[in-house]
Amino acid sequence: MDTVQEKAQVLIDALPYIRTFHGKTFVIKFGGSALSGGGEESLSFAQDLVLLQHIGIRPVVIHGGGPQISSLMGRLGMSPEFVDGVRVTGSDAMEVVEMVLTGRINREIVTMVHRYGGRAVGLSGRDAGFLVGERKTHSGRDLGHVGKILTVNPEILDLLDRNRFIPIVAPVGVTEDGAPLNINADEAAAVIAGSLKAEKLIMMTNTGGVLDDKGELLPSLDRKEILSLIERGIIAGGMVPKMEGCLRALSEGVGKVHVIDGRIPHALLLEIFTPEGVGTEIIRSAGS
Amino acid sequence: MDTVQEKAQVLIDALPYIRTFHGKTFVIKFGGSALSGGGEESLSFAQDLVLLQHIGIRPVVIHGGGPQISSLMGRLGMSPEFVDGVRVTGSDAMEVVEMVLTGRINREIVTMVHRYGGRAVGLSGRDAGFLVGERKTHSGRDLGHVGKILTVNPEILDLLDRNRFIPIVAPVGVTEDGAPLNINADEAAAVIAGSLKAEKLIMMTNTGGVLDDKGELLPSLDRKEILSLIERGIIAGGMVPKMEGCLRALSEGVGKVHVIDGRIPHALLLEIFTPEGVGTEIIRSAGS
Amino acid sequence: MDTVQEKAQVLIDALPYIRTFHGKTFVIKFGGSALSGGGEESLSFAQDLVLLQHIGIRPVVIHGGGPQISSLMGRLGMSPEFVDGVRVTGSDAMEVVEMVLTGRINREIVTMVHRYGGRAVGLSGRDAGFLVGERKTHSGRDLGHVGKILTVNPEILDLLDRNRFIPIVAPVGVTEDGAPLNINADEAAAVIAGSLKAEKLIMMTNTGGVLDDKGELLPSLDRKEILSLIERGIIAGGMVPKMEGCLRALSEGVGKVHVIDGRIPHALLLEIFTPEGVGTEIIRSAGS
Amino acid sequence: MDTVQEKAQVLIDALPYIRTFHGKTFVIKFGGSALSGGGEESLSFAQDLVLLQHIGIRPVVIHGGGPQISSLMGRLGMSPEFVDGVRVTGSDAMEVVEMVLTGRINREIVTMVHRYGGRAVGLSGRDAGFLVGERKTHSGRDLGHVGKILTVNPEILDLLDRNRFIPIVAPVGVTEDGAPLNINADEAAAVIAGSLKAEKLIMMTNTGGVLDDKGELLPSLDRKEILSLIERGIIAGGMVPKMEGCLRALSEGVGKVHVIDGRIPHALLLEIFTPEGVGTEIIRSAGS
Amino acid sequence: MDTVQEKAQVLIDALPYIRTFHGKTFVIKFGGSALSGGGEESLSFAQDLVLLQHIGIRPVVIHGGGPQISSLMGRLGMSPEFVDGVRVTGSDAMEVVEMVLTGRINREIVTMVHRYGGRAVGLSGRDAGFLVGERKTHSGRDLGHVGKILTVNPEILDLLDRNRFIPIVAPVGVTEDGAPLNINADEAAAVIAGSLKAEKLIMMTNTGGVLDDKGELLPSLDRKEILSLIERGIIAGGMVPKMEGCLRALSEGVGKVHVIDGRIPHALLLEIFTPEGVGTEIIRSAGS
Amino acid sequence: MDTVQEKAQVLIDALPYIRTFHGKTFVIKFGGSALSGGGEESLSFAQDLVLLQHIGIRPVVIHGGGPQISSLMGRLGMSPEFVDGVRVTGSDAMEVVEMVLTGRINREIVTMVHRYGGRAVGLSGRDAGFLVGERKTHSGRDLGHVGKILTVNPEILDLLDRNRFIPIVAPVGVTEDGAPLNINADEAAAVIAGSLKAEKLIMMTNTGGVLDDKGELLPSLDRKEILSLIERGIIAGGMVPKMEGCLRALSEGVGKVHVIDGRIPHALLLEIFTPEGVGTEIIRSAGS
Repeated sequence: MDTVQEKAQVLIDALPYIRTFHGKTFVIKFGGSALSGGGEESLSFAQDLVLLQHIGIRPVVIHGGGPQISSLMGRLGMSPEFVDGVRVTGSDAMEVVEMVLTGRINREIVTMVHRYGGRAVGLSGRDAGFLVGERKTHSGRDLGHVGKILTVNPEILDLLDRNRFIPIVAPVGVTEDGAPLNINADEAAAVIAGSLKAEKLIMMTNTGGVLDDKGELLPSLDRKEILSLIERGIIAGGMVPKMEGCLRALSEGVGKVHVIDGRIPHALLLEIFTPEGVGTEIIRSAGS
Repeated sequence: MDTVQEKAQVLIDALPYIRTFHGKTFVIKFGGSALSGGGEESLSFAQDLVLLQHIGIRPVVIHGGGPQISSLMGRLGMSPEFVDGVRVTGSDAMEVVEMVLTGRINREIVTMVHRYGGRAVGLSGRDAGFLVGERKTHSGRDLGHVGKILTVNPEILDLLDRNRFIPIVAPVGVTEDGAPLNINADEAAAVIAGSLKAEKLIMMTNTGGVLDDKGELLPSLDRKEILSLIERGIIAGGMVPKMEGCLRALSEGVGKVHVIDGRIPHALLLEIFTPEGVGTEIIRSAGS
Repeated sequence: MDTVQEKAQVLIDALPYIRTFHGKTFVIKFGGSALSGGGEESLSFAQDLVLLQHIGIRPVVIHGGGPQISSLMGRLGMSPEFVDGVRVTGSDAMEVVEMVLTGRINREIVTMVHRYGGRAVGLSGRDAGFLVGERKTHSGRDLGHVGKILTVNPEILDLLDRNRFIPIVAPVGVTEDGAPLNINADEAAAVIAGSLKAEKLIMMTNTGGVLDDKGELLPSLDRKEILSLIERGIIAGGMVPKMEGCLRALSEGVGKVHVIDGRIPHALLLEIFTPEGVGTEIIRSAGS
Repeated sequence: MDTVQEKAQVLIDALPYIRTFHGKTFVIKFGGSALSGGGEESLSFAQDLVLLQHIGIRPVVIHGGGPQISSLMGRLGMSPEFVDGVRVTGSDAMEVVEMVLTGRINREIVTMVHRYGGRAVGLSGRDAGFLVGERKTHSGRDLGHVGKILTVNPEILDLLDRNRFIPIVAPVGVTEDGAPLNINADEAAAVIAGSLKAEKLIMMTNTGGVLDDKGELLPSLDRKEILSLIERGIIAGGMVPKMEGCLRALSEGVGKVHVIDGRIPHALLLEIFTPEGVGTEIIRSAGS
Repeated sequence: MDTVQEKAQVLIDALPYIRTFHGKTFVIKFGGSALSGGGEESLSFAQDLVLLQHIGIRPVVIHGGGPQISSLMGRLGMSPEFVDGVRVTGSDAMEVVEMVLTGRINREIVTMVHRYGGRAVGLSGRDAGFLVGERKTHSGRDLGHVGKILTVNPEILDLLDRNRFIPIVAPVGVTEDGAPLNINADEAAAVIAGSLKAEKLIMMTNTGGVLDDKGELLPSLDRKEILSLIERGIIAGGMVPKMEGCLRALSEGVGKVHVIDGRIPHALLLEIFTPEGVGTEIIRSAGS
Repeated sequence: MDTVQEKAQVLIDALPYIRTFHGKTFVIKFGGSALSGGGEESLSFAQDLVLLQHIGIRPVVIHGGGPQISSLMGRLGMSPEFVDGVRVTGSDAMEVVEMVLTGRINREIVTMVHRYGGRAVGLSGRDAGFLVGERKTHSGRDLGHVGKILTVNPEILDLLDRNRFIPIVAPVGVTEDGAPLNINADEAAAVIAGSLKAEKLIMMTNTGGVLDDKGELLPSLDRKEILSLIERGIIAGGMVPKMEGCLRALSEGVGKVHVIDGRIPHALLLEIFTPEGVGTEIIRSAGS
């Protein structure tokens, strides 16, 4: 009897979360490395998405795809080049970026959602002209099609949400002139979350969350603490722009940001439906 | 880590049921004896209802109240009288029946649902004229206000459902002339389930389900088997009309009927979200 | 021919009132004493309600039930106790209050409306959690479950109104913790009228209206005049809180308040559809 | 008190009719002679219309205008010519017919409705192409623009009805080629009533109704009786096509037809809201 | 092949205009003289209207009828009298004005629209009480029913627009008391355009547009330039009030006003869909 | 003046087509070779699409991409292999097919539509699970992921259409198990047109249409004639399955099929808006 009662208790324990999050939008960044793994991570992720959708949460997924892009470039004899972790994206590289993100990874996520009985539609920022941006330079250097988002037109996301389709977004933008843009997926997720005033922005990473200088997980951080950790160099490398995106999202009206360990099966569910959470939560201010 | 993963697994295991039952109507009979107990049963029942509502199921509750009626009659110096388990209901008794069911038990269930964050509205068959019936005799004997339902007007139930209020129904009907009727709660549940073409009719009892002649639980029964068990006297007493109501509900389009043990905490959730179920399921025919 | 023409004229004379009040909300307090009479009063009241509904007015009824509560308490051997006209309401008394109001009087009004072809749904403040309040003391004395309303959640009233059901409200509230509250019916009517910005609040009493010191009816009063009459002791006793409720309703946006003689058959119609009216009207200020 | 109570009783007596006719369509033929009188008849008619609209009935008015047409023709030096009571309508006459019906009489009725607080929109069969027909001959003779209706497109009537505008229809049709048609108003009313499956078709005449050979009013007639009266020559002249129109309307689904005396003030109200009625009612069959 | 390609190019060239004006309201004044011509002008006008409607523009037409009114007055032995170009409108004249405008010209335009597959409904300001005004004097002289518009109630226009009917408006208003008013058609068009915040007000005239002192067309004018031309007497006569109406429309939110030559076939299309336009455009200020 | 009038005439001549096709669905197959050309063809195609959308037609585009697929395969060192013109599609080839179709060509069409002010959303058959199929063999030979469509779920197309987004569909299907399928674009267009009961299916080719044995264009063909031409070997090669798809579309309710020369600028507009058309029209039967 015990186990059965425990099962019921798990469902009951989820109730307050279900109630609180009903009808709310969650923007979820899902990294490309998760997909390139054995597939287990992405299967558990797809199941979680479908569960969220069925209990009335509105998930919006933004995915990456760095490893797969580099791999195809390699097969085509192109050598990936990075400046401070940002991929230099000439026209040929942009073609590969778009084909891999929109034509492959995006497709796989859409189909996985359907395998578990959910409904999804893949989008890139070109569709419905919903991510319009411009090229950006990095440290004064021209990086080709690397760009930033200037405006988000959320009409197509709303339309899909209201009709119970999960939008799966490839981080490709478009300029006013119709040229494609390679957008950093973390940045795309943060900007989209901000424009939707999402309840939560959830960054699924292949680390345990934000770690302190001893490698210990920091379960909760606010703006000040993050800025201090950056200043002290404890948050460094690729984590810096990720954190800046998180802070911007918060300042634009996102309720809370979570940086969680996407390698843990069902990390998404655990973060949302258990009091402990799995990773680091980022809030506006510890006092608020 | 294990326990946390197990929690996630419970939620994931519930997914197919959530998907299947989304938007479906479940009519649930909740006995008065459950309420007169310590209250634990009814609290777990209210939590279960709220969970169902939040994941998109449409519950409709019909409750009883026999013990509480007898108790108030006692306090008023009236002696309850039964013919084959049916309460003889003169005008004075009817007044007590209605006050206890509509004015007390119904109220408590409504409020319990709200305590767990759900939304409920109490109804009797007088409201919106939704349970219209006539008096019935029993073995040729006049039982006063004891009645049966002739027509169900489900408009008010639909209205509440669509606006996310759980209807809590006291089994009191009304004649064309406006006189109140004392309706058996099992019968009311079966008739309402039939008129709504409910996905499930769930009878919460204070037994383990339908038992065979050795007192063992019969996990699944179809029409033929039930009729045979009645003929052989194994199903007897108050269980006979209950079974007849269940069979009629099935024949009017209800998907499946469950007779479950309301004394088990969260029996409702366990029945709906676990493959084992808790009690007896009744289906149209074993072959179908 | 004359009489027939006169009939037509009555309908035509009602036209400007019908036009003015189309789609407007009228909150009507209907006293318990009316119901305990021979029934004539309540039958004519029910007819009037149905007529109002059919010509496009949105009535909301709040009823009392003092005499019936006292009577059942008597039969149960409990002695009603009052402090300045307010019933001391221990747990046992509260149970009786709720059963009588919600389980009996409310039911009778609902059914009378249906007898005349209208549609009604009975509510208490527990339903949809629509009257939330807290206990209040009187002159420093704890009166048990006697309470006041803190918030009105009118969603359920709107829902019923829009679907052409007349809400019949028993003045029972609920605390945040789910405990029942005994609310004065005049006060409940005034607070609900205020929260709905009702066109009219109509208090049906068993007096002719507000009387002056010679027992003459005062046909129209404004705020200042009422305060002066209270100060001079001409308005006294139970009429004082009634008047205070009326003034508060006006200050919260109710168009006009009428205190009318519920003993006159069809008093409601006469008040609404004839220029003379029957009783006292209370307006914000004589100059406005 | 008596008179006031009698007033209330008139309103209450109207209740069953209001209930029965709520949301139903009444097509009303209003003759031109009523308008050419002192105006009293048309004022009381406009008041009645507004009352009907306010209590939820959907009136559609078709008006005539024979005397006014003849008068303008006279002023223009044209001599009206009739064949069996049908106006020979050459192009010049048609121009006059249309100007008088659509540009004058129709306008006056629209404005009278507004004077009593109702809302009306004037239409001819040209508007929205809603009365399409063809020319017809009479006894083999070409009567010019005299026509009959072939199709009614009720979309514009529905649109106005749903938005609480009373359609006031001038009986002018249009051919497929865009030429105007002079349609008999009785015929137009009958055809429109049939196409709307109206609850009632009410013919307001300047007689007391259908009379027998002694000049006595016949209060109720069915199909067979009418045919017999026509055969026996008791129904004769202009009343014959009127009766044929009524019978066709009944056979196309109109509930009941009334031929009433438009000279009685508020004849419309009296017919609808009193049990006696004023004139002759025509039903499908006495036995039904 | 050339000609075919040129055809395609014309359609493609229209695309930016179609896109810009989708869903926008155009108020179009169509003069009576156009209708009294051979009919060619009005046929091409009707075709243009239908095309506008089909590509998503919402046209509202206001028409005149001066020549036709004078003609009927002549036939009736009445002599038209004008003060500064304004028709003195006694009761008899008003009757003629209304019959001609509402009962004849309006009807013809409605039917022409239907001939080309469009849908139209004729209105005067009496319908739905949508043009309410009062009499006005001219240079201190009483001109009878000549009036000005005080309020426009656009509900009926919106209703027709949303249901894809083109409103064809005869410039007849109504006083609060229900008396008809003879409104200048230019003025009516300007006031209606202002109340609808129309994208464009297009005045179709029988001149080439606004001309300078050498008779040359002025293709574009702003407020200042118009006031100067009036001061200098270059804009004079009937063109002065027309210009004043245009300026008022602009100041009330109309996007742009065009005075075009209605004698050019398809002048409306040419103005809207070609860069050159045909006539004079009037804008708020040359700098804006 | 002439040219301007001719322009207006072109628009007016388009009116009957605009009217006829308002709200109708056109399924348009756009070949990959058009895109690989200089780009002129695809730009004129995008303009045409936007014009169609703005005048109320609902276009659905299915595109191909054979040349681009072969080119990428070549760059990756894979050698394309065909059996009777069908690409053998192993897993590696499928990956290329999907990336090129969904991640490149589809993207370009979407963006071109936006460049001309239209709105488009790219889809593959995986999105919303809208093209579900299974693998098919060819002459008994396994061709890998080559598949055929079993069911079309048009919900997502409807959703986009109703919200004025043009769906741009890459012909990639999905099996029940989530594996991708390479679908022939002609076949996909025909099946989708059939499931939508499209008004027209328009096949844009790089030939002039269907030619007879002397290379002359056949302007109109019916079922019988096509079957005869196939039998006689005049329709041969890749044109055979294209014709079979066209015939199946007609038999499933498509109004008409057109095979037109996509190399002609604005071929789509010319086909739709001129009486001559450009290419071969295929109808059910010459007699119908």
